[in-house]
Amino acid sequence: MSEQIYVGVDLGGTAIKVGLCDTEGRLLQTFEGPTEVAKGHDTVIDNIENYIRRIVEESSYDWSQVAGIGAGVAGFTNVKEGVILLAPNVGFKDVPIRAILEARLGKPVKIDNDANVAALGEAWSGAGKGIDNCVCYTLGTGVGGGIIINGKIVQGFSGLAGELGHIAVIPDLEAIQCGCGKMGCLETVSSATGIIRMAKDAVERGDRTSLSLLEDIVAKDVFDAAKAGDEVAVRIIARAAFYLGKSMAAVAVTLNPERFIIGGGLSKAGEFLFEQIRETFKKLSPEPVTRGVLIVPAELGNDAGMIGAAGLFLRS
Amino acid sequence: MSEQIYVGVDLGGTAIKVGLCDTEGRLLQTFEGPTEVAKGHDTVIDNIENYIRRIVEESSYDWSQVAGIGAGVAGFTNVKEGVILLAPNVGFKDVPIRAILEARLGKPVKIDNDANVAALGEAWSGAGKGIDNCVCYTLGTGVGGGIIINGKIVQGFSGLAGELGHIAVIPDLEAIQCGCGKMGCLETVSSATGIIRMAKDAVERGDRTSLSLLEDIVAKDVFDAAKAGDEVAVRIIARAAFYLGKSMAAVAVTLNPERFIIGGGLSKAGEFLFEQIRETFKKLSPEPVTRGVLIVPAELGNDAGMIGAAGLFLRS
Repeated sequence: MSEQIYVGVDLGGTAIKVGLCDTEGRLLQTFEGPTEVAKGHDTVIDNIENYIRRIVEESSYDWSQVAGIGAGVAGFTNVKEGVILLAPNVGFKDVPIRAILEARLGKPVKIDNDANVAALGEAWSGAGKGIDNCVCYTLGTGVGGGIIINGKIVQGFSGLAGELGHIAVIPDLEAIQCGCGKMGCLETVSSATGIIRMAKDAVERGDRTSLSLLEDIVAKDVFDAAKAGDEVAVRIIARAAFYLGKSMAAVAVTLNPERFIIGGGLSKAGEFLFEQIRETFKKLSPEPVTRGVLIVPAELGNDAGMIGAAGLFLRS
Repeated sequence: MSEQIYVGVDLGGTAIKVGLCDTEGRLLQTFEGPTEVAKGHDTVIDNIENYIRRIVEESSYDWSQVAGIGAGVAGFTNVKEGVILLAPNVGFKDVPIRAILEARLGKPVKIDNDANVAALGEAWSGAGKGIDNCVCYTLGTGVGGGIIINGKIVQGFSGLAGELGHIAVIPDLEAIQCGCGKMGCLETVSSATGIIRMAKDAVERGDRTSLSLLEDIVAKDVFDAAKAGDEVAVRIIARAAFYLGKSMAAVAVTLNPERFIIGGGLSKAGEFLFEQIRETFKKLSPEPVTRGVLIVPAELGNDAGMIGAAGLFLRS
């Protein structure tokens, strides 16, 4: 067999997920092992190497068919140099991961950050399949993003493109400071952190809400309460959805993407959330940039990172 | 001589400007003739053809050296099909200009809208020379834009990328409706139209300003009054500059460009305007996306269209 395959590595703080992909972005096989951050830097790198060798050995493919190895990591990366600048979850700082893995494995290696590889994965073989221009939001603890133009990740001047959580969309009078130091970022409202904060504020204010009965509040509680008709929760989710839609209106006149793809934990709230986002997007955007544009949930879930990492070779 | 040259056409309502460019984006020779819109569609096309033939004949280059002809036009274009969908100034509607010119001239033809070709011209051999990722604003009657990533124009799904004048940045309480139908677009404040409107509003309100002495107000009057210390004019320009800077902060976290280039009539206000834009941009952006990023005036003036049109072959 002379078919080429690509290895995609999703390097997380708890687990290292490794996948084999074909040239169409199909995941052929996966393997997951512990990262073992506590054992230190060298062990983590040993683990990456071993898991990659192992998945190929256990597959029906030969090592010679591996055309490249891509890796995505939560943190700051220097894509050109192949260096992980800072990945706190993995305990990496200034690790020239590309050079290290290329020396150990004898294969070309590419890296990028987790938001970008997830976006690329979705664009390549998930919710953006067949679409050249799409913008991905990841709604989790924060709001991440990745931008795909002509099928490729947009990196920007210093690798910071796609920081969609830091579009300032909240009006001054309602704005609070974001972790980035600026006021009114999307992330302060439309992330799990933002939703939990708004819910706790409401409870502390004494608003009448079923959320006040809970010992601790997680974002899912707020979605569940909203779906059950709790008015305070409804307002909180409406606010999170509104500012997502507003940010998409700004992105739409700038980049005119064909599709917005929303992933991450919060996206599991489903149509309840998506309908509100779409409504705001349409209301706030000039009609021509909304024509034919879809706002859809991500499809690959936790596999997006592995697939996108493998895609770094074919789509960047 | 076997050197290849490219013809760039700037198709305007009054004049057709034609330039010869080398492969480095240097303008070798130019010719300008009347568009003659009043004589109708066929005459305009004859003129384009004749001016192109003429500039090459009058040059030291041979027709065989012309490797391609690019054209920029103010209006809606279908870049892929090479059709001018609507160009009111030129009186064109659904004109398959590429097919027509290719048949008449026997050379490959590409087209794009004026904002995009001007952006490409600046990126190629003007204020963005040597820079791969830049975002261009054109401040005129409206606010236009063009986005260059990896040296190429970003078209978007339906050719509407770069409509930066329609980023909604004005707070709801101060927002007015834009020509696009939406509220609070940048263009309602940071264009010549917006500045004139704010000045007239101030005069009508009875604000104490030297502008009330003028029979009619143009944008330059407001800049001149502001530079002379007129407080009302100072506030109007500060507002126009503030929202430009605010929109750039949104663009910066989305695309992380290396350079913002500002052209168009208003940009001639110079450092007085630019300093205020830069100040707001820095204040409203997370620091990492401002690092090393410059906000500079366009350099090519009216030549940007010709140069960018020629560049459609080398940079798209």
